[in-house]
Amino acid sequence: MAPRTVLITGCSSGIGLALAVRLARDKQRRFRVIATMRNVSRSGALVEAAGSALGRTLEVKQLDVCDEASIRACLDSIPGRRVDVLVSNAGVGMIGPLECQSLAAMQGLMDTNFFGLVRLVKEVLPDMKRRRSGHIVVISSVMGLQGIVFNDVYAASKFAVEGFCESLVVQALRFNVAISLVEPGPVTTEFEAKVYEEAERADYSQTDPETAAIFTDLYLRNSRDVFASLGQSPEDIAEHTLRVIEAARPPFRHQTNAAYTPMAALKHADPSGALMTEAFYKLVFKYGAVLRFGLRAIRLLRWKAQKRRVKERSGFLRERSGRDRAGKGCQLHPPPRLLHPWACSATAPPSILLRASDAGLEMHQLRVEPHNTRAAWRGHGALLDQLQRWCRSCGVEGCTGDTAAGPTVKPPSPAPGPPPHAREADGSCSTDSMHQHCAPCTSAVPLPVPRTWPPHPRWLWVL
Amino acid sequence: MAPRTVLITGCSSGIGLALAVRLARDKQRRFRVIATMRNVSRSGALVEAAGSALGRTLEVKQLDVCDEASIRACLDSIPGRRVDVLVSNAGVGMIGPLECQSLAAMQGLMDTNFFGLVRLVKEVLPDMKRRRSGHIVVISSVMGLQGIVFNDVYAASKFAVEGFCESLVVQALRFNVAISLVEPGPVTTEFEAKVYEEAERADYSQTDPETAAIFTDLYLRNSRDVFASLGQSPEDIAEHTLRVIEAARPPFRHQTNAAYTPMAALKHADPSGALMTEAFYKLVFKYGAVLRFGLRAIRLLRWKAQKRRVKERSGFLRERSGRDRAGKGCQLHPPPRLLHPWACSATAPPSILLRASDAGLEMHQLRVEPHNTRAAWRGHGALLDQLQRWCRSCGVEGCTGDTAAGPTVKPPSPAPGPPPHAREADGSCSTDSMHQHCAPCTSAVPLPVPRTWPPHPRWLWVL
Repeated sequence: MAPRTVLITGCSSGIGLALAVRLARDKQRRFRVIATMRNVSRSGALVEAAGSALGRTLEVKQLDVCDEASIRACLDSIPGRRVDVLVSNAGVGMIGPLECQSLAAMQGLMDTNFFGLVRLVKEVLPDMKRRRSGHIVVISSVMGLQGIVFNDVYAASKFAVEGFCESLVVQALRFNVAISLVEPGPVTTEFEAKVYEEAERADYSQTDPETAAIFTDLYLRNSRDVFASLGQSPEDIAEHTLRVIEAARPPFRHQTNAAYTPMAALKHADPSGALMTEAFYKLVFKYGAVLRFGLRAIRLLRWKAQKRRVKERSGFLRERSGRDRAGKGCQLHPPPRLLHPWACSATAPPSILLRASDAGLEMHQLRVEPHNTRAAWRGHGALLDQLQRWCRSCGVEGCTGDTAAGPTVKPPSPAPGPPPHAREADGSCSTDSMHQHCAPCTSAVPLPVPRTWPPHPRWLWVL
Repeated sequence: MAPRTVLITGCSSGIGLALAVRLARDKQRRFRVIATMRNVSRSGALVEAAGSALGRTLEVKQLDVCDEASIRACLDSIPGRRVDVLVSNAGVGMIGPLECQSLAAMQGLMDTNFFGLVRLVKEVLPDMKRRRSGHIVVISSVMGLQGIVFNDVYAASKFAVEGFCESLVVQALRFNVAISLVEPGPVTTEFEAKVYEEAERADYSQTDPETAAIFTDLYLRNSRDVFASLGQSPEDIAEHTLRVIEAARPPFRHQTNAAYTPMAALKHADPSGALMTEAFYKLVFKYGAVLRFGLRAIRLLRWKAQKRRVKERSGFLRERSGRDRAGKGCQLHPPPRLLHPWACSATAPPSILLRASDAGLEMHQLRVEPHNTRAAWRGHGALLDQLQRWCRSCGVEGCTGDTAAGPTVKPPSPAPGPPPHAREADGSCSTDSMHQHCAPCTSAVPLPVPRTWPPHPRWLWVL
């Protein structure tokens, strides 16, 4: 079967990047990925993560969803204008009190998040209808199903996306064109980190002091907990989206985070909205402690479940690699990306999990050697450097360690774009997110961790 | 208790007009209505319907929801900028294949339907929060809960309204400010009639012939049936909105049409959306006959229920008026408005129902005299003229007939605005909607009836 052409918007970072890489590195080579972004000069991270897929199964193109001409030009550059799967992912965020947001900023958000999709659909759907085949996948949000305090306009834009697709799906189906909405909950991407960081620094003098206090003291604090407890990685969302794309009968709606099901149920259980309103009001203003306790309980449960899954997997992997018993790891190409920070117990974790999903490799377990002191774990750069050193010559398929190089995964060609991070004058690493690996740094240089969010991990799990 | 100041947008016709009049004519004088519209020169219908309330409990002001300066100027003209209840009603419609709609038109729609609300809220909410009291009532739509084929962008705008309010409601509640969404189904207003009339005339060459055919042959036909079977009058919606406004604990959501509950249930029953998509697909493309049969069955049931209610009411009214037995009617002020056309059996209806809700009067039953031939009923003007003649001197409270003038309802002062209709050179009446009365016309002049929609009624029920 010929590979399906998948056009994805917003690929310079986050979900778009993760999905483009995931599809381009598909083992069965089922996809030809056109990874688009507004500003191609920001393609460095994608190019690096794509590695050898670049130019083979992945192509980077310029596309600004706010500019019809740019969409048309991009499509015209594709042979036969054939897009089998359109993934509408480009989006911007906005949080805060309504009084502090300008109409122009809100309109700009709607122009990207909603009209961006409309422009893409207007350009792509007629071709799909003519061919009587195609799939439009829209990265929406649980905030397209349920509004959240201080996300007024962002939620509105995602609701609009949902209403638009709900209306369009029946007509599209008539022409054998599928429409799917992927609805992630909180995702720990640069996108979110940036929105929240900006929110912490912003000026709230335009609203009353009480509203400003509710936002900064209650909302931002709760959000930190929510992201730490329920957050998923862009790679998780990419996996979910892949499942939607490869489904024989693609679902119209697909939520990636089961933790949000009760939220939607609240709304459905009482059409008057009283139950929903009251529950959210109480959670935010009355029983904040219960919310935080609940989130911590979820965090613990997720950690335990993860641990069990890891244990099961590690058995499988030990068997597969045949070398892991020796305590050796694997040198991964591309270097491992730190996907998800995880604060766990204060005692040294028994193992570190590492998944280089970009490389199409399975999960690996790396034993902690006795000489690894707690101090050595504090910086991500140091951690990853340490991992690199342990990972030599494991012999796992796909590895390019000293002793065995797998045939399926090649080391990536050097990234042509600018490196995602560089050393600053003061010796610190300038990588602006803790979610990027820091392998090129020396082991002595820890990655800077955002001040308060996500919480500074005492121990890290590389999931 | 001092009257509450209610600011309503979009009052030149439809729901806004009906609500403004209903509140201004409240028997307990609980409201001071600021009825706003973009173009005050279009206030004729409102001024006429408001009658004596004008200048007493109702004031007409200019307000364009697309212009922040206009909103601010309107609010600044209100003593203390005090708005107790804001009713965001102004909106525009759009139906048709996506390919035939320009981005500019879509953005214009979003600017009115969604950003119009945002602008109002930004201007009104801070004052309400400061006073720790207020109520924001938003006229949304069932299409804010469920998308409908060929309503892609309209549904998106109403979804956006819902998402925005859902996000805002929790914060507002903290300041004792209530937010309510009124969600009507189809409403037979000039607004809808115009949208559908334009859709029938429009050019669909920009889309493929199949889509155009689905829209004109399936969608428009089904819509006609839906409006005829499930349609409500603006006065119905005004009554529902009044209930929301006067509630001690206003609901967050209020659907005005119970017939739409199953539609929402479909969505809630299956979060993947498969049930919803399939059901709508089958209803439109496979079992259209079932849909039409179902709608006709609903029409019949509604007609029967209406008949029973009327029978019950007429007994009460006969008792109340003490004169109805004589076959005489009541001369109503303002003259009765034709609220809802109803196609019933081919045999002569046993009675004509007339409700002048504007005048605060109850429902009246007017017997058909034997000499009223079928021909005399064909034109609305003729019908209403006939009714007027029958209605002389009934003695019902509130009437200003020859023999008894009720103390509570006075005849309205002559409308200062332009009359809503006038005789044309060819002798026809220029009133552009069948929903406006035609009392000033001679009985020989029928009102023009839209070509195909709403269906030309063989018999009329004035509900």
